[in-house]
Amino acid sequence: MLTELESTLNNFIEVYHRYSMLQGNDHALYRDDLKKLLEAECPQYMKKKSADTWFKELDINEDNAINFHEYLTLVIKVGLAAHEESHKE
Amino acid sequence: MLTELESTLNNFIEVYHRYSMLQGNDHALYRDDLKKLLEAECPQYMKKKSADTWFKELDINEDNAINFHEYLTLVIKVGLAAHEESHKE
Repeated sequence: MLTELESTLNNFIEVYHRYSMLQGNDHALYRDDLKKLLEAECPQYMKKKSADTWFKELDINEDNAINFHEYLTLVIKVGLAAHEESHKE
Repeated sequence: MLTELESTLNNFIEVYHRYSMLQGNDHALYRDDLKKLLEAECPQYMKKKSADTWFKELDINEDNAINFHEYLTLVIKVGLAAHEESHKE
């Protein structure tokens, strides 16, 4: 039986794999995959920043793919913004 | 209507607030609060590292409390470990 935090972490992993497995290396989100993920999962974060800008920002090692570590950077950025928002309501 | 990633992020925030609001500043997890969170939410990560060790490691600014940014470090560490595990099964 998973704790709430554990199932939440599993959700993150599932969302990543859903898009990383679309093509090529199973642990790489390519430019198109990231765009699909952002459009489906956090459309409001594309208002000020395009999918291409996100991609450049997240691809820290510049290998033209977002690995799981780099994906966590997205999760943190969106998480911090969501936390700020939760206190504005 | 929230996306899956958004509700997942909300879960993280909820778990944090549940323990950060137990005492004192609403945005501070004190030593006892962190222990309660770890015991309830990720008991398997306390096998190799005590709650005290976690606390010292996470309290980057050494103000004797874990703020939301510092909590995300825990989430990332546990998330990376969970991701590794998910490929061992």
